[in-house]
Amino acid sequence: MKYHARVEVSLKPGHSDPEGETTMKALSELNYPVSAVTVSKVYTLRLEASSLESARQKVDEICKRLLANPVKDNYRFEIEEAK
Amino acid sequence: MKYHARVEVSLKPGHSDPEGETTMKALSELNYPVSAVTVSKVYTLRLEASSLESARQKVDEICKRLLANPVKDNYRFEIEEAK
Repeated sequence: MKYHARVEVSLKPGHSDPEGETTMKALSELNYPVSAVTVSKVYTLRLEASSLESARQKVDEICKRLLANPVKDNYRFEIEEAK
Repeated sequence: MKYHARVEVSLKPGHSDPEGETTMKALSELNYPVSAVTVSKVYTLRLEASSLESARQKVDEICKRLLANPVKDNYRFEIEEAK
């Protein structure tokens, strides 16, 4: 069966977010009243698995091994069966 | 009033996504049965505005000027009043 997973990887609070800071600086220079910017990433995966539970396990493993850095990132994901 | 905006910037269909392709290659090499990966970005902004409508206009302008490239990116956003 095919599944779609949507994984969001964001920085843990307290970790520096240079891309967010640069974006905020650029917006301030353009005179936008923005006081905080954070940036996170969304990965959309299409994967094959025998069941929803097995897809969930695979995606969790993929996050731990490749997509998220356990030292500095949080991740969360949603999975649904692909039509 | 303060507002939180969540902006998602993703590639328009048909544009090449080198980061997604590299991620897919890495996952295939680790033997995960993944057949497609796309990567998009989520910006979370905190901004000052006089009303929800004005916040919406500002965020739309910010997307057009800075966060999304009109040639290759789609964007969508949600805004809510900050507590």
